[in-house]
Amino acid sequence: MQSGSASSSASTGRSTIARIKAFMPIFEWGATYDQPTFVRDLVAAAIVTIMLIPQSLAYALLAGLPAEVGLYASVAPLVLYAVFGTSRALAVGPVAVVSLMTASVIGEHAAAGTHAYWQIAITLAFISGIALLVMGALRLGFLANFLSHPVISGFITASGLLIAASQVKTIMGVKADGHNFVDLMTQLIAQVPNAHALSIAVGVFATLFLFWVRKGLKPLLKRAGLGESAADIVAKTGPVAAIALTTAGTWLFDWQAQGLKIVGEVPQGLPPFSMPVWDMALWQSLAVPALLISIVGFVESVSVGQTLAAKRRQRIEPDQELIALGASNVSSAMSGGFPVTGGFSRSVVNFDAGAQTPAAGVFTAGGILLASLLLTPALYFLPKVTLAATIIVAVLSLVDLGILKRTWGYSKPDFIAVLTTILVTLGAGVEIGLICGVGVSLALFLLRTSRPHIAEVGLVAGTEHFRNVKRHTVEVVDHILSIRVDESLYFANARALEDSINEAVAQRKGLSHVILQCTAVNAIDASALESLEAIDARLKDAGIKFHLSEVKGPVMDKLANTHFCHDLSGEIFLSHYQAYSRLR
Amino acid sequence: MQSGSASSSASTGRSTIARIKAFMPIFEWGATYDQPTFVRDLVAAAIVTIMLIPQSLAYALLAGLPAEVGLYASVAPLVLYAVFGTSRALAVGPVAVVSLMTASVIGEHAAAGTHAYWQIAITLAFISGIALLVMGALRLGFLANFLSHPVISGFITASGLLIAASQVKTIMGVKADGHNFVDLMTQLIAQVPNAHALSIAVGVFATLFLFWVRKGLKPLLKRAGLGESAADIVAKTGPVAAIALTTAGTWLFDWQAQGLKIVGEVPQGLPPFSMPVWDMALWQSLAVPALLISIVGFVESVSVGQTLAAKRRQRIEPDQELIALGASNVSSAMSGGFPVTGGFSRSVVNFDAGAQTPAAGVFTAGGILLASLLLTPALYFLPKVTLAATIIVAVLSLVDLGILKRTWGYSKPDFIAVLTTILVTLGAGVEIGLICGVGVSLALFLLRTSRPHIAEVGLVAGTEHFRNVKRHTVEVVDHILSIRVDESLYFANARALEDSINEAVAQRKGLSHVILQCTAVNAIDASALESLEAIDARLKDAGIKFHLSEVKGPVMDKLANTHFCHDLSGEIFLSHYQAYSRLR
Repeated sequence: MQSGSASSSASTGRSTIARIKAFMPIFEWGATYDQPTFVRDLVAAAIVTIMLIPQSLAYALLAGLPAEVGLYASVAPLVLYAVFGTSRALAVGPVAVVSLMTASVIGEHAAAGTHAYWQIAITLAFISGIALLVMGALRLGFLANFLSHPVISGFITASGLLIAASQVKTIMGVKADGHNFVDLMTQLIAQVPNAHALSIAVGVFATLFLFWVRKGLKPLLKRAGLGESAADIVAKTGPVAAIALTTAGTWLFDWQAQGLKIVGEVPQGLPPFSMPVWDMALWQSLAVPALLISIVGFVESVSVGQTLAAKRRQRIEPDQELIALGASNVSSAMSGGFPVTGGFSRSVVNFDAGAQTPAAGVFTAGGILLASLLLTPALYFLPKVTLAATIIVAVLSLVDLGILKRTWGYSKPDFIAVLTTILVTLGAGVEIGLICGVGVSLALFLLRTSRPHIAEVGLVAGTEHFRNVKRHTVEVVDHILSIRVDESLYFANARALEDSINEAVAQRKGLSHVILQCTAVNAIDASALESLEAIDARLKDAGIKFHLSEVKGPVMDKLANTHFCHDLSGEIFLSHYQAYSRLR
Repeated sequence: MQSGSASSSASTGRSTIARIKAFMPIFEWGATYDQPTFVRDLVAAAIVTIMLIPQSLAYALLAGLPAEVGLYASVAPLVLYAVFGTSRALAVGPVAVVSLMTASVIGEHAAAGTHAYWQIAITLAFISGIALLVMGALRLGFLANFLSHPVISGFITASGLLIAASQVKTIMGVKADGHNFVDLMTQLIAQVPNAHALSIAVGVFATLFLFWVRKGLKPLLKRAGLGESAADIVAKTGPVAAIALTTAGTWLFDWQAQGLKIVGEVPQGLPPFSMPVWDMALWQSLAVPALLISIVGFVESVSVGQTLAAKRRQRIEPDQELIALGASNVSSAMSGGFPVTGGFSRSVVNFDAGAQTPAAGVFTAGGILLASLLLTPALYFLPKVTLAATIIVAVLSLVDLGILKRTWGYSKPDFIAVLTTILVTLGAGVEIGLICGVGVSLALFLLRTSRPHIAEVGLVAGTEHFRNVKRHTVEVVDHILSIRVDESLYFANARALEDSINEAVAQRKGLSHVILQCTAVNAIDASALESLEAIDARLKDAGIKFHLSEVKGPVMDKLANTHFCHDLSGEIFLSHYQAYSRLR
């Protein structure tokens, strides 16, 4: 039972057809697809479509793109994910954090709203898709494990705050720039005198309405007799109601003439066929940001997928998810879209609405396609502040500042990592924030392992069990020093062990045996082996024998052929109790 | 007995005078300084001085500087180290690897031999000294532990090969450029037709003579009746003999008229007072290389110091060494010198010659000062090829390609790290080689901890000890699954544990208890805590109780206040045997 890449070897020895099937999970669920499943998928798709339309438009605007691009990015990716994805309920499309990252990257290359900007968005989706496909082919899904939960949580929290602040600008009807939170807030405060009253009125109404729909409507509906999940689904359609109300208001009262910004003309038609810009210099400068977008999108998608899969005792396969998301992004790039991934809120709605298979995603794609063919004229009078309100309400639900308190109470290194992530993301931007968060969390882990806890242990009376002499009442004898080192021995902590044993031996007179209990030693690298040799040599000079106990199988296998093992002054015992009883 | 920064708190609560004493070890050994110690130090200093003169000249040339700069760098640093250093035998001055790194850095800013080049060398020493002082003040000595022994060994081996190849150029009497080994060798081969026969003749003679002195002379002297250490010391003066012989040859036969390059006029006099160039742009571009030089110098110096201190049961204090080396480098910068550190060969000679205290260093500094005042005219006819030969013989003794074979046999990650270090250093340069070596060794450590070994364990009959069911004959019962995870639980491996337990549980029917033996779990971070909660929830759903056993004190302290601990379906047992006996 070795963990890790066990799944990667699962496909060896199968036939070609079986391999293709493993590569395209659609064959698995497609084989047993029946009418009841079809109906449930169709119902879920209808609900998700209604929810997805305003979200797609809003996230396209957040990314600095024309609203219709949000619809384009919500068709082909859903179909491709249905073919290659392993999650049964994940809904792929534009999401808040990835849209923010997209805006932050492209903003350095072109002005928002221009054609060049859109072309770069397409290129970014393409590169990001290729990166995901390559990582999938190399089975690098495990890399996502190096993003700790607190770092992800801190990153999403800070991104949510940044996004919310950027939308306040739209609601105030003013211009403000900068991906730095402090900068943005300063500008917003300075712009208060220029704020547009009607925009604020409509925007604040839409925001409050959406918050009420989210918090207050569901209990109301339940009291009115609706079932739990029905009430939930009706409440999730709130954004559509907000859109209908404010669009109607604008149409009736001619608000756009009073300066309220509206979505305006949205081109009607199918998503266009598109290709990335083939410009080496551009690709080079987009490479790292695209990779970060891929990783963030992958991590977000996989965590949503895993959460939902666990509820139905299903499994998702991270490496296959890389392939699926890669294909989705490439298809987005080829149909006029921008970077996409599996979104939290839409996937939960899809799941709650009873989606059984990825076919629901295909039906949703059909719904969005219909919308982009027929519905776009209806969006003419839609106020942009309504979309801003949709985004604010959606992202504020992602903000979790409680993570600071929780990690402070439980684990200081996690606290430092999450605080760094939040501060750097807010102060210097999303990309550098994520990199610093991961860097700090890894550095703190390394720092901890480089300073191992080392305890002298003694026998718990009446058992064969040894415990720290400082924490438990235990039996010790004068001529034996039992030491337990609580870490694998490797280059960063090899000297610490040498120092500790030297000090411990210097303090204890009359010693004739030192036994190192290796229960926590999961590996001994070449540097640590040299340190053990040095310890043995020094103890030998002082007339003390050096023993090991409870060396694990994999560690013993390696030690067996070394000089250390042959030259050791003492012995290697199976259990510490054996060593202690023999030497006592 | 907690390891790590214990020493840092040792000074708290002492008087001001005691603190100054701790900061300047000279007060410690100076207080008991007597005549016999004085005599022994003086003898050692005389021997080291003789050895140091040719070495200092050679390393200055290696660094691309005028020969006399090597003498300047061997006076003030020795005195400053004597005041601040904690090693009794370390000899500070120019060393091979640091000189190579110096040449590689400055080569990007100025042409070797120019005044600007020398000014930058002075600035580099200054920045490097400041970096060491700052690291010392922040007590960052522990950072050196992150350089694994194999990486250091690989780095020094590759640097040695690079240096030797660069000296072959001098011996061939041709021009060749490039800090890339393959490049350099290609150029040398292409230059064979232009090689200067006399230079080769003198250079090869000097090289062979020095190798013979090193390997063959000592046994000869011992057979002639000299004692072990006397023979050793006489053999160490070989370079002086090589210098005398070839200088005499040049003087007698007028070899310089036949094209043999000589050292020529070396300015006679005291080291000049000098200051770094105050240019922000230059400082910025030198910052990272200076830091790398500082770290390499520090690591080399501390390993030499520790090896020698261990032989006399003395201790050296890494954080104080940072201060001492920092002061040495700043003083080198202020007296016309370049970056220095504690050198291996000279320190060993100093130690073997009987140096008792750092006062020997002060006397050596006096010797070098006399030499730079009086001896420099005698160096006029010294052939440069002799100095090249000195360097080749010195650095080839540092080359240890056997490290590849040893690490291959014992530890593949160490092998990959050392191979990367050697190849990148040879192929792309010393700085990037070192960075890649450290990066790869840390990445492989992280990768290993992210894929923990997880074993099912059973009771070893007749004991209270549990071992892997696949390796030992042990007792297991059907309704209990005992699992031991061989790693601290943290974000990178939290999912691996979830997956493993899920799989193991899926394979075993009729389970009612899962016990996780935590002997090797030295920490549980916030991400891993969430995973444990998820495991517990999933097992609870399946009607299985989840227990922990042998949770260590420091880990238990943290768990005690968490929801996990209160909501756990099972119990936390002191020993695995207790858990097993109770649940059986």
